[in-house]
Amino acid sequence: MSGRIVVLSGGVGGAKLALGLAHAVDPKDLMIVTNTGDDFDHYGLRVCPDTDTVLYTLGDVADRERGWGRADESWRFMETFRALGGADWFNLGDRDLALHVLRTARLRGGETLSAITADIARTLGIAAAVIPMSDQPVSTHVETTGGPIPFQHYFVREQCAPVATGFAFEGIAEAAPNPALLEALEAGPRAVLLAPSNPFVSIDPILALPGLRDRLRACGAPVVAVSPIIGGRSIKGPAAKMMAELRMPVSPAGIARHYRGLIDGLVIDEADRALAEEVRAIEPEVTVAQSVMRSLDDRIALARCMIDFADGLSAKGSP
Amino acid sequence: MSGRIVVLSGGVGGAKLALGLAHAVDPKDLMIVTNTGDDFDHYGLRVCPDTDTVLYTLGDVADRERGWGRADESWRFMETFRALGGADWFNLGDRDLALHVLRTARLRGGETLSAITADIARTLGIAAAVIPMSDQPVSTHVETTGGPIPFQHYFVREQCAPVATGFAFEGIAEAAPNPALLEALEAGPRAVLLAPSNPFVSIDPILALPGLRDRLRACGAPVVAVSPIIGGRSIKGPAAKMMAELRMPVSPAGIARHYRGLIDGLVIDEADRALAEEVRAIEPEVTVAQSVMRSLDDRIALARCMIDFADGLSAKGSP
Repeated sequence: MSGRIVVLSGGVGGAKLALGLAHAVDPKDLMIVTNTGDDFDHYGLRVCPDTDTVLYTLGDVADRERGWGRADESWRFMETFRALGGADWFNLGDRDLALHVLRTARLRGGETLSAITADIARTLGIAAAVIPMSDQPVSTHVETTGGPIPFQHYFVREQCAPVATGFAFEGIAEAAPNPALLEALEAGPRAVLLAPSNPFVSIDPILALPGLRDRLRACGAPVVAVSPIIGGRSIKGPAAKMMAELRMPVSPAGIARHYRGLIDGLVIDEADRALAEEVRAIEPEVTVAQSVMRSLDDRIALARCMIDFADGLSAKGSP
Repeated sequence: MSGRIVVLSGGVGGAKLALGLAHAVDPKDLMIVTNTGDDFDHYGLRVCPDTDTVLYTLGDVADRERGWGRADESWRFMETFRALGGADWFNLGDRDLALHVLRTARLRGGETLSAITADIARTLGIAAAVIPMSDQPVSTHVETTGGPIPFQHYFVREQCAPVATGFAFEGIAEAAPNPALLEALEAGPRAVLLAPSNPFVSIDPILALPGLRDRLRACGAPVVAVSPIIGGRSIKGPAAKMMAELRMPVSPAGIARHYRGLIDGLVIDEADRALAEEVRAIEPEVTVAQSVMRSLDDRIALARCMIDFADGLSAKGSP
């Protein structure tokens, strides 16, 4: 099998899978497309949480325990900022800040988010292509019973407490899919993988880019997802809570239904083996695997499983 | 004697005198007007070196050895910024950065530099009024034999090496003197003091504000300066070098000539006592004092000397 592996990714889960893939295949054959719907301006600085988590993880500078930001981080800026009366609901580490200041200045100077991200990736020694889903800003809002809330406010400030009723991606109609992504799809990739990221706020913003679903369907490569729901819960973040609030089954079957018409296969966890038949009624191609990525070996194993699954689907002639 | 003491100030020298004054009189009677000609945008952050030095000094958070920035500072941001490819000719400490990020965001939000500075001063527990000379941006350029150079580039990046031929204050024609300063002058201050700051790039930008010289002459208070040149040298910074390059005598007499028509008296250092007569030929009112501010006591002593000198001039009916 040849061609690139294109991964649609949110933050932590996507970064873990990306790291596994970077070990499982030649990272030069890897393109990680990051969700930018979470990006926001905080005190005038452009912060791109999902892109940064992928960059930090692949660059081996991520904090492994905290799950976001950089390792060997300090908080002198934040401490002083708070003392001067600045809001402190969103933490910015001293090292992390360097990326935000640099990127913001370059964006203001007229450079694209793609070009800046590529430079940062190079500086961090990342061989895989890390590309933001679009160079035009998109802003995810969580629609709640109390009205719409910008994503970071919902996620960080409100700690996901509000009841979600839907999602809106402001700016999406004017956002062009990253040209490098379109080029990769045009060239015929080996596989398109949907990371075990939040379907609503990490993967759906990417899929909502004008024309992208059609391009994914037309690219000739199998589209394979992995369920972020395991044993009725999400590994991390509010995916399960959102599914429940949206009256969806909180299970791989719910994920299969959500991605129906787009994916060619779904990886579900060993813990949900008993649900495989139920899932097959919705999505016939199902593989059961150990999908919780605790160690690097777990990440590599899941990466290999998804590639093998996709290669198998290609061999079968599906799609 | 009653009324406010208005001080025109640059960075370090002005901050030292301001601190002495804050101990010598009720700080509520003190108004420190800071030069903003040094202000500049660095990677999208608005940095106000002179105002910040005054704020940090009066707020007792300044680094005393380095002469700029905050005490108990760290450089994690800078280290990472450099590693990511950011330019590192201007150092920004992790704590210092908090002020720049907060101020920049508030300026972008439409607040005035005065309002933001007043808030910061309050947060730092400063009782004196610290006001930027204007809310409109002014940008000092050093004209050199190699062309004009923005001040921070000249001062920090080029380490004052280029030969100065003159100075330009971009934006000065559209910059209104701070309304609080005009109000203080209108109310009839006790004294106007020119700090021992660089005459060309710290004090002159303030004096160049439209109409300000006339307002200073008309305010009824004595205007007293202290020579920043002692023993033919400047205590700190390029004042002496600039005077030499501009073919001025590098002495208190050169300072007296520079401020002629504006000041009512000049304080010169003990070290220059032998030059007193020469100075009096230009500026009749001269006082000799220990003007090098090594200790807090030195700062307080110089502050008291300048106030007494000004009060004496008032008693004499001059101006």
